[in-house]
Parts: sequence; C-alpha cells; structure tokens
Amino acid sequence: MITSTQNPRIKHLLLLQQKSSQRRADGLFVVEGRREVEHCLEAGYKLRTVFVCSEISPLPAPTGECSGALWQRECSMLPKGEREGGFDAEVVPVSRNVYERIAYRGGTEGIVAVVETRCLSLRDLRLSESPLIVVLESVEKPGNLGAVLRSADAAGADAVVVCDPLTDLYNPNLIRAAIGAVFTVPCVACSTEECISFFKEKGIRILTAQLQDSSLYYDTPMTGPTAIVMGTEATGLTDEWRLAADAHIRIPMLGRLDSLNVSVSAAILLFEAVRQRQIEK
Amino acid sequence: MITSTQNPRIKHLLLLQQKSSQRRADGLFVVEGRREVEHCLEAGYKLRTVFVCSEISPLPAPTGECSGALWQRECSMLPKGEREGGFDAEVVPVSRNVYERIAYRGGTEGIVAVVETRCLSLRDLRLSESPLIVVLESVEKPGNLGAVLRSADAAGADAVVVCDPLTDLYNPNLIRAAIGAVFTVPCVACSTEECISFFKEKGIRILTAQLQDSSLYYDTPMTGPTAIVMGTEATGLTDEWRLAADAHIRIPMLGRLDSLNVSVSAAILLFEAVRQRQIEK
Repeated sequence: MITSTQNPRIKHLLLLQQKSSQRRADGLFVVEGRREVEHCLEAGYKLRTVFVCSEISPLPAPTGECSGALWQRECSMLPKGEREGGFDAEVVPVSRNVYERIAYRGGTEGIVAVVETRCLSLRDLRLSESPLIVVLESVEKPGNLGAVLRSADAAGADAVVVCDPLTDLYNPNLIRAAIGAVFTVPCVACSTEECISFFKEKGIRILTAQLQDSSLYYDTPMTGPTAIVMGTEATGLTDEWRLAADAHIRIPMLGRLDSLNVSVSAAILLFEAVRQRQIEK
Repeated sequence: MITSTQNPRIKHLLLLQQKSSQRRADGLFVVEGRREVEHCLEAGYKLRTVFVCSEISPLPAPTGECSGALWQRECSMLPKGEREGGFDAEVVPVSRNVYERIAYRGGTEGIVAVVETRCLSLRDLRLSESPLIVVLESVEKPGNLGAVLRSADAAGADAVVVCDPLTDLYNPNLIRAAIGAVFTVPCVACSTEECISFFKEKGIRILTAQLQDSSLYYDTPMTGPTAIVMGTEATGLTDEWRLAADAHIRIPMLGRLDSLNVSVSAAILLFEAVRQRQIEK
C-alpha cells in the first residue's frame, strides 16, 4: 500500500492531473469515481493503473494474490459482458491521506485510475443513418465542453466535434463535468476546414447557431443528417462557419439577458432534433 | 479611499459574502460586476454601498464632491429611465489590493455593491395571462439555482419558486451563476404545501418531471398556465408533488447516462413551452 504522498507514482499521477503537457507526453490521463471508470472501460479505453483506497471505497481491497481480473469479478465493480482486452490494469492500494491528495473531486468513491488516451479523428466516427452532431468552434472552459457532452449523451447524439485542435479532451474539469459522457459520446478535435469538408462530403446539413439572419430553431427541419454548430458565448461564430451553413438558427431570448450557457443551448437544439425525429417515426 | 483589507467595512462585506446568517441578520447581500449591479437596480433593489476600484474599472472614479446621483449620470453606468427611489447609495473608492480581496469572481469590473435583500412571496408575483413557472423542490447547489434562473430568464418565465424555505437566495455562487437573472426573474422561496395550493387556486397546471408513469414532454400541452416542477438529481420528486400533478412528463434519455443537469432539463422543458406558445400564436 502506498502511504506517502511523496511516492513517485503519486507524484506522477498529480502531474497528469495538473498538466496537459504531461498528459500529451505520456498519452495518459486520470479518471476518478466508480461510475466514470466503468464508462471508461465500457468504451474500450485501456486502464494502466487503478489506485484504490479501501478505507473509503465500499469495495473489498484487492489482496496480494488477487489478480486484476479476479479483483474485477470479486468486486463486481466493472461491467459484466465481454470487453476486448479485459482488465489487466495494475491495482494499487493507497492510504486515506494519499487518496485525499489525489482525489480531484473530493469525492468519496475511493477510485482513481490512470488511463491511456485515445485520439479519434472524424474518419473514425461510426455515424448512424441520420447523424446528429454537435460542433463547438472553440472551448472557453473545459467544464463547458464536459456539460455539452452530457447533453449530447442524453440526446443520443453521434458525436461532439471541437474545432480547436489544441483542446485537451482529458482535462480533469472536463471529465468531471461530463460525469462519464466523455466516454459515452465520441469526441473529436480537428480544424474547422477539415470539419466543414467532412460534413459536405457526407451530406450532413450544417446549422449554425447565430442571432443574425437566422430562423427560429424549431422552424428548421432537423430530421436529416444534421450538425449543430455553436461559437463561444463571448465572440459567436466565425465567418468560415456562417458561410458554410445550410441554415442559420437561433433560440429566441425572451428575457433580459443576452445569452445561455453553451451546454443549455446545445441541449435545447439537440432535443428539438429528438422531438422532430421521434414524432416523425 | 479604503486601502486596508482590515477596514471594518471591508470585513463586514466579507462576512456578508461568506455567511448566510450574516446576510439574514442584516438583510443585506453582495452583488459584483457592472451588468449585475445594473440588473439589480433595474429590478428596484436598493443599493446601500457601492465599492469601486477606479484602477480596475473603466469608469471614472467618483470625486469627493460627486454625489451618488451625479456619479451615476456621469458614469452612465446605471440604467437610464425612471427608477423608484433613485440612486442614493454611498460610493466608496477602494484600492486594488482591497478590491482583489473582495472580488468574489476574480473579475475585473471593479464594482462590488452591498444591496438590501427583498423577500418576495407567491402573492407578490405579478403573473402574465398564461404564466410559465419553474418550481424546484429543493436546491442541491446554489450554482444550480443560478443556472435555472438564467434558463428561466431566456424562456421569459414568470417566476422560479424554490420549495425549500431555508434556501438562501443571496448566496454568492447563485448570484454568480445567474449572471444577473436572480434580478430579472422573480424568485420565491416557500413551502411545498403553500405552493401547491397557490397553483390550484390560480388554475395553474402542475407538470412534474419524473421518469415513472410519465409522457414525453413534447406530447404534453403547455400553452395554458403551467408550472414545471423538478426534484433533485439525486432523489427526484416527493409524493406530495407527484400526487398534486396534472401531468407527469419526462425528457427521453437516449444515451448511457441517467440524468441531465437541472438547469439543462429546465431549459428543455421551458423552451418546449415557448415553442408551443409561439407556434400557436
């Protein structure tokens, strides 16, 4: 059991939490919480190390002779059914003081995992017959992207695309805000140019959320292949997207304030697509 | 100019930010940021003191002979048009180090105001012909209520009601998350019993958001007087509300996760009412 916060593995874990450069260099990131680790495994991510605090976690602690796979079965923490690769992560018990240092959320679930990153490109996406995609032109706060992923999961969207190749999809605030949706919804970072030509090639209609020259979102058909593109709260969308759009849509702002949180806007637009699609069936 | 963070007025301000008991005892709360202060004044709140850091704020600093009203006009910071009561708050210049201590947001707008609280009850609400009201049975995080208020503002809702009389409507996290909507949307805290009998008396239909025994929200008419009632993410709604409901509605969850953020759910439901009402017109 690791009992010192000065242990080199703990120091490395903290670096992975704090520095995107470390995450990029090592191809590793950190996932905290039982449910999040489950979603992460189900999505086929490869766990490298699982730090467990048996004092906090209601799971039995793995014993010396307990292999990862055995521990998995015994703890029934991890999803049943077949998964490629299986569970061959190393399980490392940690003391309560160490856990409290590494627990980003101050949660009490007793599980923090180091996981291998995985880069998806647009071509990797497995799209449904009539895809529904959210595009964010850039990401002001990692937590906002996490919240958009959560809305996208609920609406059954095919993917979230961030047109800002520098976006760090493994930021801890993002993962925390997404409550696992970062694993359940495919998320791609690419350039605006790449993204527009991909949509044009695939016949996906581009709907840009903008106030000027726009129709009310619920007057706009979304039953066919649809990408909903949103800019930042501060600066809106660039001309590149406006010109590429098949339609401009807006959410009517009926109060005194002039904007909605981006995850709220995404949800309103996505669920209008859900409504139109379900009612058409 | 106040230059010491140990100044008694600054210490009192910090207490108001940190302690709801202090806010209750004094009937005062704290608002930060130019836009927020504007919305607050427009809503008819009475400002007691405005702390201004002229080093940070682009506004001219009030000079010694500059009365509050003059400062208001000169700075054109405050809304034009008639307001009851006018602007007779005391304007107190503070140094940058003091401002950095009292700025809750770490924002850079240079304005923090101490404002008198105002208790609205259900009977004080001025409802439209076909009111649209959001009810939260309780509030898990003040920031969530703030975000719901922001969604309610955008949808032009008449009011937000919190059925938890202990809720502190003046929590700084709430005010921050609402970006001013705490002033633009009337917000009432009362008991569930009071609220249900008010709705019954006024002929306002109660729609409870719940997964069991429910219809899809977009199959439910919302053009008449409507209250949308939501429980907490963790525990859902109590039986009291379920039994009082005229209809149970649900947002279909099409992904892997089992819930949406409450402000996102509120926005989806409120904007369905907006859609139905605008299309009917």
